[in-house]
Amino acid sequence: EIIAAMERFFDVGPLAGRRVLVTSGPTHEPIDPVRYIANRSSGAQGTAIAEALRDLGAEVVFVTGPADAARPNGVQVVEVQSAREMHEAVMGALPFEAGVFAAAVADWRVASASDAKIKKIGGKLPVLEFAENPDILREVAQLTDGRPALVVGFAAETNDVVENATAKRARKGCDWILANDVSPATGIMGGAENAVVLISDGGAESWPRASKRAVAEKLAGRIAEALGAVVRA
Amino acid sequence: EIIAAMERFFDVGPLAGRRVLVTSGPTHEPIDPVRYIANRSSGAQGTAIAEALRDLGAEVVFVTGPADAARPNGVQVVEVQSAREMHEAVMGALPFEAGVFAAAVADWRVASASDAKIKKIGGKLPVLEFAENPDILREVAQLTDGRPALVVGFAAETNDVVENATAKRARKGCDWILANDVSPATGIMGGAENAVVLISDGGAESWPRASKRAVAEKLAGRIAEALGAVVRA
Repeated sequence: EIIAAMERFFDVGPLAGRRVLVTSGPTHEPIDPVRYIANRSSGAQGTAIAEALRDLGAEVVFVTGPADAARPNGVQVVEVQSAREMHEAVMGALPFEAGVFAAAVADWRVASASDAKIKKIGGKLPVLEFAENPDILREVAQLTDGRPALVVGFAAETNDVVENATAKRARKGCDWILANDVSPATGIMGGAENAVVLISDGGAESWPRASKRAVAEKLAGRIAEALGAVVRA
Repeated sequence: EIIAAMERFFDVGPLAGRRVLVTSGPTHEPIDPVRYIANRSSGAQGTAIAEALRDLGAEVVFVTGPADAARPNGVQVVEVQSAREMHEAVMGALPFEAGVFAAAVADWRVASASDAKIKKIGGKLPVLEFAENPDILREVAQLTDGRPALVVGFAAETNDVVENATAKRARKGCDWILANDVSPATGIMGGAENAVVLISDGGAESWPRASKRAVAEKLAGRIAEALGAVVRA
């Protein structure tokens, strides 16, 4: 870690001078002033990835939803709440050479979000209408102008992990998908470890279960290689 | 605080030997394994009330949703996630002499909660159907057998605070309502201060804006009086 810090100081990491973006954490979609829809992403994996890329010398833009994980040092932190805010922050951060989209972005928002608290009167149930949120990963992956050299998505699945993630990669047009099984039984969501499958042109590559930090370091090394950086042993 | 600790130690606080219940924090209502509906309650006010009642010598049962606030010491903590779990915990804690229902309980849950992650396929939007959650405050306030001597509800309002809270008190059948204005502009939700109106038989009594701790101590003193405890000056 001291070597990493010195490398950063002397700007000699393999990703020195390379600009990368990482999204992380959940998004919160308001229902009314006091209620919102959230998801169980802790931001732990995205934060570890931002740190690992930073440690290789990259200039990291870290766009994070309201996550529990402490914000990483030495990166540019952009705090957002909703998917639409995250979309705006990512688009505003272009151009970057690699984008890692680890945030658990809400697919939809409440179209009928209310400015006043929805009241419970006479047993009438609320009706929530949804609208689709911008698909940040797809939009960046399919940029015709200024597309990052490497676009990495995540897939949080609860069943048929490789199949679903492979389909997602094709649908989005991204280069890699890091897929994991977030079924409650795995303890991955909110936990310290991750077990991922890297889906790329080359097929599906299972990585052994490891700490989220170790997964992040492995991914950062792969990203450096993909960007043509010289990674010293 | 040392005197309070000594009083607790020697069991001589005005509420010594009196069993009270406090609910606190938000509830989380699952949509699927990774998504849920939450609300912005930090648990700060409920936690402060539990501490203030403890400091008067009460035996406190503290039923809390997944709140950010650190759990109080010296009370019995019961952790729950959903409104239905909170209902079960409260009913299981009966009998108690006073109940303070400070939790921001979700009025409704997702009836169609899914065991697998809801997928975004072909732009089809999900349809969420809701079911009413148990009304914990009303159920306790209207117990014919074993009703606590004092039932205190909270009303988080964004408009017509006194009017809405007075109507809520009548609807629930509780003794007191502590009403506050949680409009984002007030900074109360998630903030350190509170400005409440106590709605009782005697009408509406506005308390000056103060720290949540000061509001809690004032409320605890009133509860002790209402329970006929001798509060020393």
